[in-house]
Amino acid sequence: MQREYGRRTLLHQIRRAGRIPRIELADLTGISRATVTTITAELLSRGLIEEVQRDESGPDSRRGRPRVDLKIRGAAHLLVGVKVSHHKLSLVLLDFEGEQLAAKECDLPAPVNAPEALADAIRDAVAHLATTAGRRAEEISGVGVGIAGIVEATDGFVHWSPSLSVRNVDLGALLTRTLGTPCFIDNDANLVAVAEQTFGLGREHKDFLVVTIESGVGLGMVIGGALYRGTRGCGAEFGHTKVQLNGALCRCGQRGCLEAYVADYALLREATLVSGLPPTGDPGTRIETLLDAARTGDATARSILDRAGQIFAMGLANLVNIFDPELIILAGEQMQLDHLYADAVIEAMRKSIVQVDKPPPEVVVHKWGDLMWARGAAAYALEQVSELALDRLDEDAA
Amino acid sequence: MQREYGRRTLLHQIRRAGRIPRIELADLTGISRATVTTITAELLSRGLIEEVQRDESGPDSRRGRPRVDLKIRGAAHLLVGVKVSHHKLSLVLLDFEGEQLAAKECDLPAPVNAPEALADAIRDAVAHLATTAGRRAEEISGVGVGIAGIVEATDGFVHWSPSLSVRNVDLGALLTRTLGTPCFIDNDANLVAVAEQTFGLGREHKDFLVVTIESGVGLGMVIGGALYRGTRGCGAEFGHTKVQLNGALCRCGQRGCLEAYVADYALLREATLVSGLPPTGDPGTRIETLLDAARTGDATARSILDRAGQIFAMGLANLVNIFDPELIILAGEQMQLDHLYADAVIEAMRKSIVQVDKPPPEVVVHKWGDLMWARGAAAYALEQVSELALDRLDEDAA
Repeated sequence: MQREYGRRTLLHQIRRAGRIPRIELADLTGISRATVTTITAELLSRGLIEEVQRDESGPDSRRGRPRVDLKIRGAAHLLVGVKVSHHKLSLVLLDFEGEQLAAKECDLPAPVNAPEALADAIRDAVAHLATTAGRRAEEISGVGVGIAGIVEATDGFVHWSPSLSVRNVDLGALLTRTLGTPCFIDNDANLVAVAEQTFGLGREHKDFLVVTIESGVGLGMVIGGALYRGTRGCGAEFGHTKVQLNGALCRCGQRGCLEAYVADYALLREATLVSGLPPTGDPGTRIETLLDAARTGDATARSILDRAGQIFAMGLANLVNIFDPELIILAGEQMQLDHLYADAVIEAMRKSIVQVDKPPPEVVVHKWGDLMWARGAAAYALEQVSELALDRLDEDAA
Repeated sequence: MQREYGRRTLLHQIRRAGRIPRIELADLTGISRATVTTITAELLSRGLIEEVQRDESGPDSRRGRPRVDLKIRGAAHLLVGVKVSHHKLSLVLLDFEGEQLAAKECDLPAPVNAPEALADAIRDAVAHLATTAGRRAEEISGVGVGIAGIVEATDGFVHWSPSLSVRNVDLGALLTRTLGTPCFIDNDANLVAVAEQTFGLGREHKDFLVVTIESGVGLGMVIGGALYRGTRGCGAEFGHTKVQLNGALCRCGQRGCLEAYVADYALLREATLVSGLPPTGDPGTRIETLLDAARTGDATARSILDRAGQIFAMGLANLVNIFDPELIILAGEQMQLDHLYADAVIEAMRKSIVQVDKPPPEVVVHKWGDLMWARGAAAYALEQVSELALDRLDEDAA
């Protein structure tokens, strides 16, 4: 009855299933067998899916009939995912089935770059990534880019990012122009949520939150099976929710933000009182010294980390009280932030939520590296490129 | 292709349109004309919709052809909505088109009742409401009930409610048994969101929040056009999000909850220092005295109300930073809470959100009375009864 709806439903179902016979597609989706035959013929002719011989060694194999499954055609499209972080780019190359063909990391010229410099760096890194897989950059159908900050995903507009030297950058358009292939931008925490949805724990959950802890605190929200991005491109700003009226000064210029209590700069601001801590120098090293001091019983260091943990627990409890999610995933690769992942923090969070006679939401820690974030960006590109291919099919068929 | 999907889409579209010809239904939904004819015949035979002669006075009228629109058949079902509040029940009776046939308010035996006593009171009030409209209680197809507290809407289970003397009550089942008709329970703030979606500003918005302020603070979230209720029945507990680590004691037993700063009991806890305020007595009268004192320049009274406003602004800003909604509706009938609706509060909220070069979300104050809340409850019953009718149709057709 709605051919567009049928195309999307069937392609999605084939991707979910891996390999699936036509008759099962009809059963699973409620779409008639005749329509399944018509639509899958269209998808085959566009090269988005392919037929494969069924493995006939199973118990219900029968002789004499050709048995054919449908699957996504990996060669249909090449996708790249890029994570922009403080000092480097992390990239993966996927095929249309989601198989990883190559991965790479490379340094950025600086932590904060002009938009053109960042675009050039991404273009060069993508070209190099393609080469390592024996492919050409021109073969790539889409590039997903995750970046920290306030990003409007629908048009790739970046209101603000700690990685960019200027505000209000039309980064999607700039990258698409520079790379010569469609580029799709989103907030990096959203793309971790996409990674969890596509490759991780999110496959079994419809309502979950991903909280990312790097130098800032990010949030990705999956509600009813879909990523929720807000309406002006500035939702999920968990790090800037206020935990104290007129509280500590935040990098954003406001007071009392969660980040102003739990981010690395917030810890270091207080840490000058800790014995043995160098007053200046590399933040990573200084944080490590602070953590060491706490482990060896320095009371001031312990007090600094304890408060960060208490405030983080309070922030998490607020999310649970609002969303009541099935699952919260804490993600971030910085092992140095172990104090925020501690059992005591999870326990404090559980005591601060509304108490009912049901178990609290599950909390899972995923210390995935930047390449997983890049896979999320690639999964986002895959989704967008699929949609573009289906849009073209709708138009040609209309 | 999916008959169940088609039935729901068409019934929904007819409800949305008010009156609509079959051919326009096909155009709007993309469902083929043949299928529209088949499905609308089913809906007609079940009495859920009816045919009406088109008003032929319009400019595109043509002679000689019978012109027929489809519309929801009001007489198909009678629905009741009930709001349970501190001292009273508010009820409305709607037909299947959503037309209000009767309304009534009546006192509850006590602010806190045993579940059976509450169920009996609701049964009697519903019967009386039906009588005032010249109908019998047996004709009612469904009753929606909104109650404050932690409610699992899917099965009508109440974890906790300030209106009930015990925790963990299977109120949906108890009411269905007592009234002899299907009863659907939800948190009252959720049903205000349903009222806004069905009859109010929510008709034009896909992502909006309703914050209710009565003796507690409630939240209803509409995300992607659907009410989001959380996964354990205890989402949207905005009043118990923490605004201060180890802060003021809340009625819930925890510390630092938003409610512990903005609810009436929180104001009165501090107000003993205000001159002229009676130390005990009716909370409403004492709050009124506190507000009068603030208006006439009592510095202590001002300080109490100012802090409540600041904390409320901080809570609202946190919601905006997380959801980035199109619209926030502040709802609640207590005119005495004007200090929370003040321009200064909205302004403080706007200063506390993440700043981008786009206008902040719209904030609207709706001082709807309890009958509007009851209409939300009735709209919820209407939705559930529609769904039950469609389920029966699906089963019979299968």
